[in-house]
Amino acid sequence: MATFRFAVNVTPKAGILDPQGRAVEGSLGHLGIDGVSDVRVGRRVELTVEAASQSTAREIVDRLASELLSNPLIEAYDVELLAATSTLLAEAGR
Amino acid sequence: MATFRFAVNVTPKAGILDPQGRAVEGSLGHLGIDGVSDVRVGRRVELTVEAASQSTAREIVDRLASELLSNPLIEAYDVELLAATSTLLAEAGR
Repeated sequence: MATFRFAVNVTPKAGILDPQGRAVEGSLGHLGIDGVSDVRVGRRVELTVEAASQSTAREIVDRLASELLSNPLIEAYDVELLAATSTLLAEAGR
Repeated sequence: MATFRFAVNVTPKAGILDPQGRAVEGSLGHLGIDGVSDVRVGRRVELTVEAASQSTAREIVDRLASELLSNPLIEAYDVELLAATSTLLAEAGR
């Protein structure tokens, strides 16, 4: 068994209303910040998975991301591997 | 001027209560998912910055991240460069 740390980045799909992004843009003027545009606000979920291989761990994260962490109708997600420990097995899973 | 796309990842600091993370962990059993632990839920903000150089753009993002996008008492952030366009200038800024 090896241990993997993943991040799931969930962002509103293009064309979907993003009120939090609009709120950030609305605050830029008060801070005197110029040149910032197209702000999208999403979620970032970091989690540890214990599994036999990296591919098995990634399958678990994909299922979690699509069924629990995102709403596929309005949000897209991507999965990032942050760290792998118990090195021998982690490398075998690559 | 060049255009840069950044992501700011905001996560609860270690030791800070993360009720959303606990909620995700509490749902894992219902989904029949094993081996997942240490879930932390934060925000991911993606934004476009137009600036003379990458270092200037990153200063703007840092200011935005610390003053508007995160609460430094309870949250940490990191900044990721996602893309740079208007290539000549973008490479000069690296």
